[in-house]
Amino acid sequence: MKVAVIQLNVGENKSKNLSKAVHFIDEAAGKGADIILLPECVNFFGDTAEIINQAETIPGPTSDVFSKKAKEHKIYINCGSIYEVADSKYAYNTSLLFDTNGEIIAKYRKIHLYDATFKDRFTSKESENIRPGNKLVTADTEFGKFGLSICYDVRFPELFRSLALEGCQMIFLPAAFPQYTGSMYWETLLRARAVENQCYIVAAGQYGKSYNGNVFFGNSLIIDPWGTVIAKAHEGEGITMQDIDLSFVEQVRNNIPTFSHRKPEVYKL
Amino acid sequence: MKVAVIQLNVGENKSKNLSKAVHFIDEAAGKGADIILLPECVNFFGDTAEIINQAETIPGPTSDVFSKKAKEHKIYINCGSIYEVADSKYAYNTSLLFDTNGEIIAKYRKIHLYDATFKDRFTSKESENIRPGNKLVTADTEFGKFGLSICYDVRFPELFRSLALEGCQMIFLPAAFPQYTGSMYWETLLRARAVENQCYIVAAGQYGKSYNGNVFFGNSLIIDPWGTVIAKAHEGEGITMQDIDLSFVEQVRNNIPTFSHRKPEVYKL
Repeated sequence: MKVAVIQLNVGENKSKNLSKAVHFIDEAAGKGADIILLPECVNFFGDTAEIINQAETIPGPTSDVFSKKAKEHKIYINCGSIYEVADSKYAYNTSLLFDTNGEIIAKYRKIHLYDATFKDRFTSKESENIRPGNKLVTADTEFGKFGLSICYDVRFPELFRSLALEGCQMIFLPAAFPQYTGSMYWETLLRARAVENQCYIVAAGQYGKSYNGNVFFGNSLIIDPWGTVIAKAHEGEGITMQDIDLSFVEQVRNNIPTFSHRKPEVYKL
Repeated sequence: MKVAVIQLNVGENKSKNLSKAVHFIDEAAGKGADIILLPECVNFFGDTAEIINQAETIPGPTSDVFSKKAKEHKIYINCGSIYEVADSKYAYNTSLLFDTNGEIIAKYRKIHLYDATFKDRFTSKESENIRPGNKLVTADTEFGKFGLSICYDVRFPELFRSLALEGCQMIFLPAAFPQYTGSMYWETLLRARAVENQCYIVAAGQYGKSYNGNVFFGNSLIIDPWGTVIAKAHEGEGITMQDIDLSFVEQVRNNIPTFSHRKPEVYKL
């Protein structure tokens, strides 16, 4: 199974963003990718006041683009995330997984919204414009069981543990991680999620300067169940590919049967 | 507040082990340590069949040694862990925290026991000789609230999240981490526990060759709430010290109010 992560610098022009995404999807499919992951906010990354106007229904114009590409190439596509409009007035940050027929087989609304304040440096108030999701999302495929997550979710081991307990062997994390916190702990948290859940983690990041000058970390990663980074994106936009054998998950779980050692009756969560 | 971690190579001779521990405690106290952490299995590290014979009551001869030292120097001592005998026949892997009067203010029995099989490399069957604990343990001190954990516990984010939710600002992890897995993810998991719980992590490791030739990883660490390694042990036995300001925990939790973003109703744990 060949997994490709596409690292992008997404801007405010939706059609430009989508044609760039499609260009890389075509290229990755041409190189034999079976599964492609794109970053968070794949079709629009701009002024937060614009979010509600840029948000789309699902299915809608953007999801149709990815659906067609998945079907055309007979591959799985996780589109990263797009803003989804609901009830004509609320927006969600939503990740979609398309199967080889172009069907949406998983729709995940980001659960943990990034509200953070770094004086003189960086502020995010995602909850001002986005509603949180309230459902774990997994997908069964011919390759195995996959879990969905987005960006700031990585700070919440509870989510990844829940997905692993549901049987996931690989978890996607599309992201737009700022340079500042990215350089501190992006790789550390992703590797920990892989180790503690003995699963693959596939993470695609936004890269470089955004509309307002904030810089995003890139460093898209594919990580194995021992926490080893088996593929890492270069600087800039582009494709990072890696062969993955999901049966390795079972082997690692046999080496250390972590899940049988849990003591849920003791935890206070 | 000055924290010292003592890295040791513990053998099978209990009195030799204890006099070495005391030597380093005296030295660290002389340098102004307020809190000292020692490694797992601090008074005996040898043949697992010997565990039940080496196990002691608590209080008992070994705990008396640490109690006296804590009182003498007016410092806190986390003795790492010792084998505790209960009902004359069961052993626990137990960590003790002594206050400045030499009183035991926290007694933690290791919850997650390390059963792991690496063919041709390393096998551990801790549950053959040890019973698991079943209680979270925290301690209130004049400096702040501390949590207790031991070694393999680090693979279980549930435990550290529970301790953080109980209010812990710093969590101790004495360990005997094998070189093999240590080099893969010791630092990664410890840093992740610090980042996701926005607390200090203080970890003391066994170092070097043990009685049966297995090599232990050392790399004792003190990590701040951003996941930054602020102190790391050199090779070999010795003391690593670091000034810590626990008010930094509050600052980081204000930057990113992670705990208010949790969604316990969604997780399936």
